Amino acid sequence: MDIERYLEEKRVEVEEALERYLPGEEDFPRTLHRAMRYSTFAGGKRIRPIFTIATAEALGRRGEEVMPLACAIELIHTYSLIHDDLPAMDDDDWRRGKPTCHKVYGEAMAILAGDALLTLAFEVIAAMDEDHDPSKVMRVVREIARAAGSMGMVGGQAVDIESQGKSVDFPTLEYIHIHKTGALILASIRAGAMMAGAGARELQALTDYGEAVGLAFQIVDDILDVEGEREVMGKETGVDALKGKATYPSLVGLDESKRRVEELIDRAISSLSVLGERASTLSAIARYIGKRTK
Amino acid sequence: MDIERYLEEKRVEVEEALERYLPGEEDFPRTLHRAMRYSTFAGGKRIRPIFTIATAEALGRRGEEVMPLACAIELIHTYSLIHDDLPAMDDDDWRRGKPTCHKVYGEAMAILAGDALLTLAFEVIAAMDEDHDPSKVMRVVREIARAAGSMGMVGGQAVDIESQGKSVDFPTLEYIHIHKTGALILASIRAGAMMAGAGARELQALTDYGEAVGLAFQIVDDILDVEGEREVMGKETGVDALKGKATYPSLVGLDESKRRVEELIDRAISSLSVLGERASTLSAIARYIGKRTK
Repeated sequence: MDIERYLEEKRVEVEEALERYLPGEEDFPRTLHRAMRYSTFAGGKRIRPIFTIATAEALGRRGEEVMPLACAIELIHTYSLIHDDLPAMDDDDWRRGKPTCHKVYGEAMAILAGDALLTLAFEVIAAMDEDHDPSKVMRVVREIARAAGSMGMVGGQAVDIESQGKSVDFPTLEYIHIHKTGALILASIRAGAMMAGAGARELQALTDYGEAVGLAFQIVDDILDVEGEREVMGKETGVDALKGKATYPSLVGLDESKRRVEELIDRAISSLSVLGERASTLSAIARYIGKRTK
Repeated sequence: MDIERYLEEKRVEVEEALERYLPGEEDFPRTLHRAMRYSTFAGGKRIRPIFTIATAEALGRRGEEVMPLACAIELIHTYSLIHDDLPAMDDDDWRRGKPTCHKVYGEAMAILAGDALLTLAFEVIAAMDEDHDPSKVMRVVREIARAAGSMGMVGGQAVDIESQGKSVDFPTLEYIHIHKTGALILASIRAGAMMAGAGARELQALTDYGEAVGLAFQIVDDILDVEGEREVMGKETGVDALKGKATYPSLVGLDESKRRVEELIDRAISSLSVLGERASTLSAIARYIGKRTK
C-alpha cells in the first residue's frame, strides 16, 4: 500500500472534520476562537487521529465512525502544544514554521485557547452517544482523560519541566517520553479500538503496538532534533541540547537511539499478528514512523 | 432551616469526597499532585458542588448520588482560579488568604496543575456510569463542557482579559459576568437536575433559578471588592478598581448594584415555585448569597 498517500488522504479528512467541530473565526469571543483555530490549523501530520481511524478500520469499521474521537484527540494534542510552548514552560517562539500561539495572541489568550480546546475535546467525544453505545463512549472518555491527565501526558510534561538543566537518568527520561508523548498516542489507538468494539485479545495486541510506536515516535523526535534540518522541521533544531534537555541521543548516543527505534518498530509490527491482514495499514504507519524525516 | 449549618455540613462532605478523587501527595509526579491539592484544599465555600447536591435533593435524590459530579465541578472551578491568577492573566498573588498556586509552585507547575484538574474533572464524571444511566452521564458531560468552554466560562475570562484598562459598556460587563462566573454556577444546578432526572418543567425552573443566582453571585463579588474587608476576604480588596476592571458598582453605582442583587434573588426564589416545599434549601441558599459578606 502507498502509506504516504493514505496519510495524506486521512490528514485532509481530519482537517475537514476539525473545521466542523471548531467554532468559527467570527463566533464571539473572536480573539479566543481565532487563537484556537490558529493553532489547530497550523499544520501537523495529524498522526494521532490517523491512528484512531486506522485502528477502527483494522477492526472492520469505517474511519468516519470514530472521527469525533479522532478529532478530540487532536484538539488535546493541540492544547498541549500551546501550553508547552508558553514562556513559563518550554518558551518556544516557533512551531511548524509559524510563530507560536502566545507570540501571535499573547500569553493570556494562549493559555485560554489551550483550556478551551481541552474542554471542547470532551464536548466532542460526549456528543458521540447519538451514534454509539453510551457506556462505550464513557469508557473512552475515561481512557482519554487518564492518558491526558496527571498520571499521563500532563504528568510527563511536569517531570520534563522539573528535569530541565538537571542531570537526568535513563528511567526518568523513559518516564517523560512514555507519558508526555506516548500516553496520548497509546490512547488514540486504544480508544479507537474500544469504540470499534475490540475484543480483549485485539485490545491487548493494539496496546502493545501503541506502547511501542508511541515511544518510537518520541525517540525519532529526539533524533530529528539532532539531525533534522531547520527548513524541513519548521522549527529550530538542536534546541534540546541548548536547553539542557535529556534526550535519547544525549543519554545513549545516536546509533543506539536508532537501534532502539528499529527494535520498537519491529515489536510494534509483530504485536499486530493476531489481527492478520486487516492490520496492514497500522504496520505501514509504524514503518513510516521509523523512517520519518519531518 | 439553618442554612449556615447546612452549608457547613455539605462543605465538609464535599471536601471528604474531593480527598478521594484527587491523587495523593506522594503519588508521582509529586510536585504536580501537591500543586493540584494545594489549590483544591485552599479553602472556599464549595458553593458550586453544594448547588449540585441541593438541586438533586430538591428532586428527591440523596446528595451522595451526585457527589462525583459535584466534585468535578469544584475541580473545574479550582483550575479556573489557578489559571486566572497567573501573571499573564489577572496576576494575583493571594487567594483565600494564601499565596496563589504559581507563587508556591512556579508558573509552569501552576499551568499544568490547572490542566490536570480540568482533565481529572471529566475522568471523575465519566466514572459515574457505574451507578447511573450512561446516556444521562453523557448529557451531563456535554452540559459541563459547554458551560466551561469557549462559549462559557473560558469565553467570559477571554473577554474580561481583553477588556482590562478599556472602557467597558454594560452589555460587555454582563457578558463577562454571565459567562465567567454564571455559566459554571448554572451548570452546577442544571447538571445536578439532569442527573436527578428532572422533568422539562423542573429543569426550566431550575435554569431560571441558576441564571439569577449565578449573576447575583458575581455582582455580590463586585460589591464585596469595594466594601469587603481584607481580613475577612483573605485577599486584597479594591483591586478591581486598581486594575481598571469594570464592575457593577463602577458602571451603575453601589446602591443600584445592591438593588439588582435583591431583584435577582427574588426572581431566583420565585422561579422555584413549581418545585414547592422541596426547594426550600435552594431558596435559603439564594437568600444566603444575597447577604454574604465573604
